[in-house]
Amino acid sequence: MNTDTRIGLIGLGTMGAALALNIAEKGFPIAVWNRTAEVTRRFHAEAGALAERVVPTESLADLVAAIAPPRAIILMVPAGQAVDDQIAALAPLLGPEDLVIDAGNANFHDTNRRAAAGLPMRFLGMGVSGGEEGARHGPAIMGGGARADWDRVAPVMQAIAARAEDGTPCATWMGEAGAGHFVKTVHNGIEYADMQMIAEVYGLMRDGLGLPAAAIGETFAGWNGGALKSYLVEISAAVAGAADPLTGAPMLDVILDAAGQKGTGRWTAIEAQHLAAPIPVIEAAVMARNVSARLGERKAGEARFGAAPQALDLALPELEAALIAGKILCYAQGFAMIEAAGRAFGWQLDLPGIARVWRAGCIIRSAMLNDMATALAEDPSRNLALAPFFAEKLETAMPALRQVVAQGIMAGHALPALASGLGWFDMMRTGRGTANMIQAQRDFFGAHGFDRLDGQDSHHGPWGGKA
Amino acid sequence: MNTDTRIGLIGLGTMGAALALNIAEKGFPIAVWNRTAEVTRRFHAEAGALAERVVPTESLADLVAAIAPPRAIILMVPAGQAVDDQIAALAPLLGPEDLVIDAGNANFHDTNRRAAAGLPMRFLGMGVSGGEEGARHGPAIMGGGARADWDRVAPVMQAIAARAEDGTPCATWMGEAGAGHFVKTVHNGIEYADMQMIAEVYGLMRDGLGLPAAAIGETFAGWNGGALKSYLVEISAAVAGAADPLTGAPMLDVILDAAGQKGTGRWTAIEAQHLAAPIPVIEAAVMARNVSARLGERKAGEARFGAAPQALDLALPELEAALIAGKILCYAQGFAMIEAAGRAFGWQLDLPGIARVWRAGCIIRSAMLNDMATALAEDPSRNLALAPFFAEKLETAMPALRQVVAQGIMAGHALPALASGLGWFDMMRTGRGTANMIQAQRDFFGAHGFDRLDGQDSHHGPWGGKA
Repeated sequence: MNTDTRIGLIGLGTMGAALALNIAEKGFPIAVWNRTAEVTRRFHAEAGALAERVVPTESLADLVAAIAPPRAIILMVPAGQAVDDQIAALAPLLGPEDLVIDAGNANFHDTNRRAAAGLPMRFLGMGVSGGEEGARHGPAIMGGGARADWDRVAPVMQAIAARAEDGTPCATWMGEAGAGHFVKTVHNGIEYADMQMIAEVYGLMRDGLGLPAAAIGETFAGWNGGALKSYLVEISAAVAGAADPLTGAPMLDVILDAAGQKGTGRWTAIEAQHLAAPIPVIEAAVMARNVSARLGERKAGEARFGAAPQALDLALPELEAALIAGKILCYAQGFAMIEAAGRAFGWQLDLPGIARVWRAGCIIRSAMLNDMATALAEDPSRNLALAPFFAEKLETAMPALRQVVAQGIMAGHALPALASGLGWFDMMRTGRGTANMIQAQRDFFGAHGFDRLDGQDSHHGPWGGKA
Repeated sequence: MNTDTRIGLIGLGTMGAALALNIAEKGFPIAVWNRTAEVTRRFHAEAGALAERVVPTESLADLVAAIAPPRAIILMVPAGQAVDDQIAALAPLLGPEDLVIDAGNANFHDTNRRAAAGLPMRFLGMGVSGGEEGARHGPAIMGGGARADWDRVAPVMQAIAARAEDGTPCATWMGEAGAGHFVKTVHNGIEYADMQMIAEVYGLMRDGLGLPAAAIGETFAGWNGGALKSYLVEISAAVAGAADPLTGAPMLDVILDAAGQKGTGRWTAIEAQHLAAPIPVIEAAVMARNVSARLGERKAGEARFGAAPQALDLALPELEAALIAGKILCYAQGFAMIEAAGRAFGWQLDLPGIARVWRAGCIIRSAMLNDMATALAEDPSRNLALAPFFAEKLETAMPALRQVVAQGIMAGHALPALASGLGWFDMMRTGRGTANMIQAQRDFFGAHGFDRLDGQDSHHGPWGGKA
């Protein structure tokens, strides 16, 4: 046993292998094990200069023996049963101070369950964002579990994590139990929403303004120099500018418009329902992916109803402003959902800290998250849309969003995410809404009762014995 | 034991008592039991002329003894653990041919679980809609479980159920296991959506056209004579026309605009996520209730952003047409979700039969369900929006919906449900959408791959080693 080896990793798939190399590269010797020994051997053989800090092992017992106690062992195996199986297999080999870290894409409810299960070892659930590239060179890391356990491994996690422009590592403890995986879930939902809003604006440029892909790419590239500066806008510019090696046509123009998904946006939408947290932009994004996959139905719809006219009288700065507004509204909803989860699960979630951890390494990294961190630090319980900095931005950008959505709707553009952000904004800025009608109906048919504006003690309507 | 008594009921709360009286009234002797004996005694004492067909019992054993085998015992107890507890308590008392019917508001997953659990008796899960009034005088009944078990009790259920205008009883077997409770779940989601769309149109009349509540009530009453003829439009007319006994003001104007909910719309939204079934109008309705409850935040929003201008240049027939279109789109989504569930759960769901069972007794009963039943019978797998009858209606009404939503958005009206229906329509009638951008992004950052429009075998972009 090399007593310098304090950490191990199980599961040398794409993400696990990248993370192990990242850890070794930052100077931490790491023992690795994969259930197929050949995978482990090949990983070690291909680790190049890093091989000397990688300890390949051929059994779980060997892995444990190769790490000096108290151990930390990262699991990078498929979410679900495989994690439970791996924990069960490790249980007889580990001591109570050894630490297992589930760094996979767990449903946070599973992480909560495991944290509460009285495992015979210490346990952390850790959300890792940034794909293979991030795992290899700097992911965003959202830790959950006992604070003391996080502190033990924080030096490693901070060393391997991405760094924000100010040098802060994007690796933070989020809270107890499943808090880290929960924050990752909201991240993924926001990722869906950011992508959908970009796709909608892309459609407005393509079909409404008649711009070719290259011009759309240049537009996104320009926007990436401003308030929208972000990884997703940057890569939108790149993909719009790329040519298809087979045909020479713009790459975007040969890709089928049916979006896949691994289902993580769905988890966000489901959890928001449990929390009664309104996240309509994320819901719209998940919906749009589902509808996009129904190609046959869409073609039948076009055959029956005809293609939409689609021409628009909009300028590019209006589209940019609309996207800025949509982004603010989407994040305002996402952070409010996180706040609701904190209350529901008893987590002391640090909202500005979450904005900071997302600034680098992960898919939704963006310049705006700096300002969000600042605004949330002023008052984490205030909706982000009401923070002075963002309220001012919204005041400037909302007329454009309104114009874009209204014109887009008249011309037959499907703008579910942008329209959902707008609808939420108009609900949130209306002191006197229309739910009094719903309350009256509910009282009429179900005697559910209602509160009165004047606070008087009369909670049913005079519906002639109907309520 | 009165050998005429073949049915019993447990749980004499509002719904259970109403259902028991309905059964007795239709000529079926019924044994009843409540865990508080006093409730049972009072129920019997207050049953009037029906008391002679009600057999009050003071223990579960007495209840079972009072019913001739093979027995049918309806549970009308709170959903969840209470149902499991009641089944467990009945198990030692019942024979394998006795039948327990859960007529409460179960989550259909629980009903699926119970159906699969190998209970020592027969078991049905039955959705009952229509509130107390419906339970007493004719609910809509959605049965689930083994067909043979349903057939045993069908004469009772058809006798107590509401009847459509053509005389058909609204009591139908939906499918195995939790199929009945599932269909009830979708019913509840559509109920949320119908109510929300009415509330949005109410807001357009109140704030956009400046109509007083009485005029709004007359408008709804007029619409109730046309394509929108339905229970919910009828009661909207009634509540808008009612005056507050305390102040003399229109009742609607004194009711607080914060919608309550028992959470059943949430179940629909969650299940749609699992099924990847797009139901954005229902999601928007649930979202709107959640936002409406955040009164403080809405007032803060209005203080910061100012009240919306809201004045509209729309005629009432445009609003009527918009509501017609919204309703068709919402039901098209709901029925498509039911179809998806049938495939997912292996149920042979009879879509036209479901439209027929909703025609009377339940909250969403409406004239349009007749036409929906006809359209679905032509081809249940075709989206309802593409059925010739409804496609034609949409062709007529969509320009109005488009105009209403676009103008409403420009004037700051929150129209989340109507806008969501419209957005879904525009996605479903667009053969070439914008998800190619999402696929390109996913391939860029995650090497997820994509399909090509030309079907060629090149499934990654030339992103310079990034995918």
